[in-house]
Amino acid sequence: MTEPKTEHKAEQTSNSKPNREFDIIARYFRPLTNGAAGALALQDDAALLSVPDGFELAVTTDCLVGGVHFLETLSPQDIAHKVVGVNLSDLAAMGAMPKVVFLAAQLPKGIQESWIADFAEGLRAALKPSGAALMGGDTVSTPGPVAFTLTAMGHVPKGHALMRSGAQPGDVLCVTGTIGDGALGLAVLTDALSIADSAERDHLIQRYARPQPRWKLAEMMVRTRQIRAAVDISDGLLADVGHICMASGVAAVIDAPAVPLSKAVRGVLAQDPTVLNTILGGGDDYELAFCAPQNAIADLQRLANELGECITVIGRIVASDLENTAPVTVHDKAGRPIIVESQGYQHL
Amino acid sequence: MTEPKTEHKAEQTSNSKPNREFDIIARYFRPLTNGAAGALALQDDAALLSVPDGFELAVTTDCLVGGVHFLETLSPQDIAHKVVGVNLSDLAAMGAMPKVVFLAAQLPKGIQESWIADFAEGLRAALKPSGAALMGGDTVSTPGPVAFTLTAMGHVPKGHALMRSGAQPGDVLCVTGTIGDGALGLAVLTDALSIADSAERDHLIQRYARPQPRWKLAEMMVRTRQIRAAVDISDGLLADVGHICMASGVAAVIDAPAVPLSKAVRGVLAQDPTVLNTILGGGDDYELAFCAPQNAIADLQRLANELGECITVIGRIVASDLENTAPVTVHDKAGRPIIVESQGYQHL
Repeated sequence: MTEPKTEHKAEQTSNSKPNREFDIIARYFRPLTNGAAGALALQDDAALLSVPDGFELAVTTDCLVGGVHFLETLSPQDIAHKVVGVNLSDLAAMGAMPKVVFLAAQLPKGIQESWIADFAEGLRAALKPSGAALMGGDTVSTPGPVAFTLTAMGHVPKGHALMRSGAQPGDVLCVTGTIGDGALGLAVLTDALSIADSAERDHLIQRYARPQPRWKLAEMMVRTRQIRAAVDISDGLLADVGHICMASGVAAVIDAPAVPLSKAVRGVLAQDPTVLNTILGGGDDYELAFCAPQNAIADLQRLANELGECITVIGRIVASDLENTAPVTVHDKAGRPIIVESQGYQHL
Repeated sequence: MTEPKTEHKAEQTSNSKPNREFDIIARYFRPLTNGAAGALALQDDAALLSVPDGFELAVTTDCLVGGVHFLETLSPQDIAHKVVGVNLSDLAAMGAMPKVVFLAAQLPKGIQESWIADFAEGLRAALKPSGAALMGGDTVSTPGPVAFTLTAMGHVPKGHALMRSGAQPGDVLCVTGTIGDGALGLAVLTDALSIADSAERDHLIQRYARPQPRWKLAEMMVRTRQIRAAVDISDGLLADVGHICMASGVAAVIDAPAVPLSKAVRGVLAQDPTVLNTILGGGDDYELAFCAPQNAIADLQRLANELGECITVIGRIVASDLENTAPVTVHDKAGRPIIVESQGYQHL
């Protein structure tokens, strides 16, 4: 019998020969464990984790495929920031402090080692602010596009995680940061939009390529015990507020003029009012949308300011109108409902 | 400005329209949560997990790409069994009882819903023996091959996880089950090997397509506190025993005639002695290799038999000979070293 001649086992190696996967793990990924004992130096069959008393583990998995979830023209560093940002943003939406990540990397055969080195450097930089450690993963080859699945875990005080359910009529609807930058950054990168001012252009691209997950704000929000519901804005503001509405059995009204916009986004919108569709529906914001009682807002805004961050009231939660199938209504400055065309990214 | 015309955002949907991803999750994956409260019905940004007092969480991630890690001609049910088996086998290697899994599924655009239904049915069947619940995941489209990343977590008594390090000269080297079935099953499926007896043929294929992770044995092994080191056999017996040797700073001798073989494998080997390379080096076994003191073996074998499983002594751990770079030596029935060509799957 001959060896099976499929690509499965095309390359066998003697255990005395160097193994490229092990080398890559040792050189580029092991340093990202920050010496965590439970990572077992990325050399064992699994990692070992403990959860401190009084905390729960929030766990999220996101898969990002080149050409689908990010432009393949992004730098390896940017892609790493995107992969980490998207996942830590989900933890932030639960009010969890990022602690550990597990990375499954699908790399095209023959990918240059410099690409992997740059990606690992981006990973290091993206994990650094939260101090989260890489605790394990898998590195495999693929005939398809480069793709990454990150499983991120964070600690949240037991029983106090932020969820999508819990919003009540009368609650105020808020967002962190500014909305629309990521979607317009993608438009710039795909030549669907041109921006004369290079600083504004860079701002939008940066916001698309390197999301800044709001786990610091989220931890503060959990401490106040005032948040009724939260979600991170990945699919688009309207779609994600819609997710809160569906989970909570409520509806929401968003006052379009109240939605916080960066200078760059305000400039684009002034030239073309239809861009509002992209701002409210485009996604890639990785900000938080959340609901809280009116009387909690001043405190929340003050605490956010102390962190150097910003919270803005953009609307309110109302009772669900079962005859109206769209849970989120957008109002113009005169309080009249307006139609927004684009409401959320379709994954499949 | 027009909407960015990349495939990123090619399909936007109003939040009142049906969303295929949400439908698929609700229909096929939500039932696999077994009603676990922390899964939040697969509708929130992350899942919430607690770990019981006295236990640690073992966490492993494996990515399986169609055409690379499994034959794309396998049925969706078989692929699900493979994805689950590979991951739960890693947990078994740590001595952890499988509890929860997170699944990131990359599906080619336009994949038939019946395929997804069959895959979910396979997932249900593969998770059932351990009772592990699907707690979250991500479902995305890809222009590449179908691919799955599973992150599996299990409970192990704190401080008593089985690791690759810890083997000592004088320890006995054992394996569970039989070796070589998976690699020969792959050979059958790729027409590199033909087997006349249909029952034997089916046995090999089944062993390749539906690994039976040994978490029950592993839990028993942890309880005995007698196991010095363990690994699961995925890359091939020689490579994986090599991993124990590297992590423990020891070497190993395997007595080839002692390696337990199924009737089907024995038949193939009798016809062609070179098949030994595939048996010892081919991988896809998803059995455990482990080291224990000689005086623990009888008890371990008795306890294994009570579980309806089998443990076989195949060799011994010896002091590392630094002049010899290959940590694993294979002996024939006369105790003479023999050369085995194929020693482990090269991942990249």
